[in-house]
Amino acid sequence: MLTELKRLLGDRATGDDGVRQEHGTGFSYHQSMPPDIVVYPRSTDEIAAVVRLCDRHQVPIIPFGAGTSVEGHILALRGGVCMDLRRMNKVLELDFEDMYCSIESGVTRNQLDNILEGSGFFFPVGPGVNATIGGMAATRASGTNAVKYGTMKDNVLSLTVVLPNGQIIKTAGKAKKSSTGYDLTSLFIGSEGTLGIIAELTIKLQSYPEFSKAAVCSFPTIDEAVKTAIKIIQQGIAIARVELLDAFIMNAINRYSAMDYREEPTLFLEFNGSSKTVEEQIRSVEKIALELGTAGFLWEKDELSRKKMWTVRTDAAPAVAALVPGAKMMSTDVCVPISRLAKCINETQTDLKNSGLMAGILGHVGDGNFHLAIPILPDDHATLEKAKDLNERLVRRALAMEGTCSGEHGIGIGKQRYMDLEHGKSIDLMRTIKQAIDPNNIMNPGKMLPDK
Amino acid sequence: MLTELKRLLGDRATGDDGVRQEHGTGFSYHQSMPPDIVVYPRSTDEIAAVVRLCDRHQVPIIPFGAGTSVEGHILALRGGVCMDLRRMNKVLELDFEDMYCSIESGVTRNQLDNILEGSGFFFPVGPGVNATIGGMAATRASGTNAVKYGTMKDNVLSLTVVLPNGQIIKTAGKAKKSSTGYDLTSLFIGSEGTLGIIAELTIKLQSYPEFSKAAVCSFPTIDEAVKTAIKIIQQGIAIARVELLDAFIMNAINRYSAMDYREEPTLFLEFNGSSKTVEEQIRSVEKIALELGTAGFLWEKDELSRKKMWTVRTDAAPAVAALVPGAKMMSTDVCVPISRLAKCINETQTDLKNSGLMAGILGHVGDGNFHLAIPILPDDHATLEKAKDLNERLVRRALAMEGTCSGEHGIGIGKQRYMDLEHGKSIDLMRTIKQAIDPNNIMNPGKMLPDK
Repeated sequence: MLTELKRLLGDRATGDDGVRQEHGTGFSYHQSMPPDIVVYPRSTDEIAAVVRLCDRHQVPIIPFGAGTSVEGHILALRGGVCMDLRRMNKVLELDFEDMYCSIESGVTRNQLDNILEGSGFFFPVGPGVNATIGGMAATRASGTNAVKYGTMKDNVLSLTVVLPNGQIIKTAGKAKKSSTGYDLTSLFIGSEGTLGIIAELTIKLQSYPEFSKAAVCSFPTIDEAVKTAIKIIQQGIAIARVELLDAFIMNAINRYSAMDYREEPTLFLEFNGSSKTVEEQIRSVEKIALELGTAGFLWEKDELSRKKMWTVRTDAAPAVAALVPGAKMMSTDVCVPISRLAKCINETQTDLKNSGLMAGILGHVGDGNFHLAIPILPDDHATLEKAKDLNERLVRRALAMEGTCSGEHGIGIGKQRYMDLEHGKSIDLMRTIKQAIDPNNIMNPGKMLPDK
Repeated sequence: MLTELKRLLGDRATGDDGVRQEHGTGFSYHQSMPPDIVVYPRSTDEIAAVVRLCDRHQVPIIPFGAGTSVEGHILALRGGVCMDLRRMNKVLELDFEDMYCSIESGVTRNQLDNILEGSGFFFPVGPGVNATIGGMAATRASGTNAVKYGTMKDNVLSLTVVLPNGQIIKTAGKAKKSSTGYDLTSLFIGSEGTLGIIAELTIKLQSYPEFSKAAVCSFPTIDEAVKTAIKIIQQGIAIARVELLDAFIMNAINRYSAMDYREEPTLFLEFNGSSKTVEEQIRSVEKIALELGTAGFLWEKDELSRKKMWTVRTDAAPAVAALVPGAKMMSTDVCVPISRLAKCINETQTDLKNSGLMAGILGHVGDGNFHLAIPILPDDHATLEKAKDLNERLVRRALAMEGTCSGEHGIGIGKQRYMDLEHGKSIDLMRTIKQAIDPNNIMNPGKMLPDK
């Protein structure tokens, strides 16, 4: 197999042990399972050639973006070929008149930000890591901007996909809307590499807001912070970001990022639009937060400090990890209808206290989505088991509230056991689709859908 | 078959000739093809029982909402059972805290508007007819509000679907976002009854805007009207509606609705939000429109006249039909990236003039979506052929501009011939999905996907 792959890709196919190890685990807390071979295609045609070869030999293919997924999406459960897409990093078309951009799937978030710098446009979807845009599509990623701009599901116009049989398809054209045929774009977004390989994307761009303002505001208890977020959403205020960080997280970021925030449950807020719109929104939100007991708002004074504040927020996960040197992070990820969020977080906080685990609560509360960040040392099986139990209770709590076991991280192998509970008989339909599109089960086998 | 169906549904299964004829054509210009039997289920379980029976006998099922689709979606090409869903019209849950509403699929737009009246919430998707919400999901409908609120694709949380094997599934929970498994909701939206029957929907509600203002503004030529719309979008102004009506349409609605608008290319505009936001938007749009040569804005003075204006807009299609008593309407429906809209409409206008056909141009130009409304007498084959030719040239023009052959009407049988041209090899993947989910091809057979 390696010989044949080398014939296709030369040095860009390797069985090197170090390279294989690097591709075995990603950011997840799961045990490493390296692939047999790693390949680095540089074009959609090369991807297709590798896929056809793997199909012929019935060898598993694991698509790999930046390895930043957290549920074991990229573990080579059954060996096979890891397809590292980071050399697929060209921008194919920038169209500011129609507000879209076509890229290869290995372009990363930071790279895209740099490309768009100064254009007046930006891509709003951003998880807290420098993921590839293709990987973000594959896991239906979101992040802090989703409350205003939606998730990957809402921000992709079209995909170029290599199917398990090696065929290359485009899922849609470039019109803003269309009613012609099955929505193939949405089918591949969130499919976690189990139906094909996303090789190129046409993504929607947003106009840079005229004006942005950000603030930090803390509360005596987490309940009041969450209720503030809920009221903001229920009043229909088009806030740009509303993030919750509990006292534990605030302590961790004060240490990690050398800040001196109050170590209380806190909301990080951002408003954008015209200056008048922003003023109006701020007035409404201040009223809600003051009624719910905030000590006040700490406004970021300029663009630099606003950016700094969001870097601090992005660094919350590494900040927690840094509390336990050498630890990997388990990050839970439920999402519930907004009215049930306070109850869900309160019960989770109590559960967390009782568990004796060290962890923080943070999340995109405007979407009803939150995480526990739990640092775990690689060999600390007792803590891992405790954390898994806590996560299981959390998932069951969220599902009982008509929520979901993952708002944005996906299933991988970490959440397969909850798929039946969440989806019931729909799992059969998902299996039917998988079986039809990937009859030899070569695409990221063993992921997402639980075994029967 | 009828005997067995009567055993299940009593009088709500019928082979009556008049009833069959009523279900044979809908609003489309296509020749009537009535089903053999019409059934009126009143619950999801009844739908499932009928589907199981039809599956056993391999009898086609044609889901029927309000019969307002325009591309022949509900023609019984191969006979079979028409499933009229209008008695599935119960509201199941209204949750204003979480801003959603669960309904049976036969609830119509007008019924839903009445239910939500006074609640402070509304459902934004609205085609120009009193369609059922289930039918709107099945065709991925949109309408005048889509430029701000999106289409059915963006406004459904979850569906209850009866699959071709009689299984009842729910496609998702009620969280605002989720990354757990294939996006089944999106798969059924726009599937035109070919994969299963949408029995229930959970749809997203929007807060009623604090303030709305609407205006009519006309231009010397259609080019300036379209360019105004393009600039509005490109400047990122969050306009609520921006509709184009050409001089022909303005003449038709003046007659039909007894108005005295200037009979020139015209934009119908709506702004909503806080009063300050609306003021800002209006200033920006006035500036653009004046630069492009509008004679000025005719502002609607109160809520009543604003509503009247949108009723007049909704009645544009019947207004054109009324010009030719007894005529049915052919409505074309392309959508292109916004920067290419002016060119597409200009070339289409020239083509229309040269064709000698009588027709008007109107559309949701903020989305890059427009229609030709062409009245055709049932027996006037020559005009029908001319109109089909014009439509074909229009579709090819839109596709050459990376657009789509349907922005919102769907494929049915009317646009099957363009599916290959638009989707290329993706059609094979769509066929694979259809074959896997509906192996006996009982669900609306012969629609959407062209024969091989």
